[in-house]
Amino acid sequence: MRFTKRIRYRFGDIDDAGIAYYPKLLHCFHCVFEDWWSEALNKPYAQLLHDDKLGLPAVRLEVDFVAPVVYGDEPDVHLGLLRLGDASVEFGFWMTKDTPQRLLNRARIVTVAVDMTTMQKRSLPQHWRERFAAFTLADGEFPAAR
Amino acid sequence: MRFTKRIRYRFGDIDDAGIAYYPKLLHCFHCVFEDWWSEALNKPYAQLLHDDKLGLPAVRLEVDFVAPVVYGDEPDVHLGLLRLGDASVEFGFWMTKDTPQRLLNRARIVTVAVDMTTMQKRSLPQHWRERFAAFTLADGEFPAAR
Amino acid sequence: MRFTKRIRYRFGDIDDAGIAYYPKLLHCFHCVFEDWWSEALNKPYAQLLHDDKLGLPAVRLEVDFVAPVVYGDEPDVHLGLLRLGDASVEFGFWMTKDTPQRLLNRARIVTVAVDMTTMQKRSLPQHWRERFAAFTLADGEFPAAR
Amino acid sequence: MRFTKRIRYRFGDIDDAGIAYYPKLLHCFHCVFEDWWSEALNKPYAQLLHDDKLGLPAVRLEVDFVAPVVYGDEPDVHLGLLRLGDASVEFGFWMTKDTPQRLLNRARIVTVAVDMTTMQKRSLPQHWRERFAAFTLADGEFPAAR
Repeated sequence: MRFTKRIRYRFGDIDDAGIAYYPKLLHCFHCVFEDWWSEALNKPYAQLLHDDKLGLPAVRLEVDFVAPVVYGDEPDVHLGLLRLGDASVEFGFWMTKDTPQRLLNRARIVTVAVDMTTMQKRSLPQHWRERFAAFTLADGEFPAAR
Repeated sequence: MRFTKRIRYRFGDIDDAGIAYYPKLLHCFHCVFEDWWSEALNKPYAQLLHDDKLGLPAVRLEVDFVAPVVYGDEPDVHLGLLRLGDASVEFGFWMTKDTPQRLLNRARIVTVAVDMTTMQKRSLPQHWRERFAAFTLADGEFPAAR
Repeated sequence: MRFTKRIRYRFGDIDDAGIAYYPKLLHCFHCVFEDWWSEALNKPYAQLLHDDKLGLPAVRLEVDFVAPVVYGDEPDVHLGLLRLGDASVEFGFWMTKDTPQRLLNRARIVTVAVDMTTMQKRSLPQHWRERFAAFTLADGEFPAAR
Repeated sequence: MRFTKRIRYRFGDIDDAGIAYYPKLLHCFHCVFEDWWSEALNKPYAQLLHDDKLGLPAVRLEVDFVAPVVYGDEPDVHLGLLRLGDASVEFGFWMTKDTPQRLLNRARIVTVAVDMTTMQKRSLPQHWRERFAAFTLADGEFPAAR
């Protein structure tokens, strides 16, 4: 099961070539990660960090930009799980627009569960492991780059 | 009548003091300005720029930061008109949170209608003048800074 | 005496109108404020915050945008003091380019000295009061908006 | 031969975990790419885009975050060529700090030469091919992630 959120791409997130500046596309993925916590897991990421002292910083990215995002686009951003280790969680993110869906970009983002008090790696709590598992992507659901 | 939109303040829009970096609060105001076009005026700002060749760049800001925004806040952002000239439009923006509403910050932003082909000032079209007028703030609706 | 730093305006800090997105111009002013600490006061702002527990958050902005900044511009950013109170410090910032200098924008930014442990207002230490005073702008040095 | 530039990591580019927000680290790489054009190739990237109608948008990223960047850090950012195809150019970027150098992060960024008039892929001009070749990284110069 994936989590999908439609976003409004912003006026100020454009570069001098007139298309989305790619660091801003990664910012969009992070925003949708935060929305997933709030809307799908019913636990705002701020509470996870502040109250539970648990965070999921990124340690590795692999990103493919397939087609440009322009101002006026309201792409669907999709999030799902690709791999669930003891402490590491690999997410797949991708953006589509139009019907039929056209792929704009995709990212594999590997995160690691961290104790926010010590900033050391820790096992992902069993509670979250179960909740995350529901968002595991089916075979072939994460799109190929080309 | 004001336009109000609740936003989710973002993980990456924090500064090293642990509160909202103020240029990002101005970015939030611009995002809500864009949402006003899409949701209240039913004309995405991108279409206004691209199809109608009309834009509203800011020429002056006056901003008061009353209380900090922190991660986890989901403030209400309010937008209304303070003054409507021939080409210039002065907006009031402010953020509140909690019940009763507590003021976080407020901004007067003067914009000027511009022909996007020439980037020269032009009169605001009558059509938009009428639509904007509905969002004129009542006396005292725009909050005092202290 | 003013502090002046030439900056390279960036590819990704452009908006869909093809000019500088104004929140990014305020970010530029903050960057030059940080450079002033490092290069003119020989105290990186990070050390002031972390070691001395002293910060200078903005409480009020007044900004005039006179001419657009475009990609390729390398404007001079100027910083000086407009007013020095007990806890409050008002800075003037402005950008110019070309010879003779052409004004692009200017900002009055009122900051307040804050104890970073309590986030409460405090008197500006005498040591910094003296160092700041050297950067007081002369009458007429801060440019008129038009 | 690599191009190296020391940067001042910025107050506003921090996230709520108190470390660099990773989309901002990618922004830093792009800034150093622009500095390479201005300072090493003596051709501002803005002129390449505007006058020569040539651009190098990213099509793929692979990034490893090895150690966090914090406010106050002034890392060295290194850029060099990993592979030079007909139209595609793969850059290696990495950040280090301290003596001896400690690796903070690294990125492989694949770009493609594009005609800015049509936004279509084109061969990299021979002139730039030769200038770029001087920045080819030696075997082992691009650091391993761990």
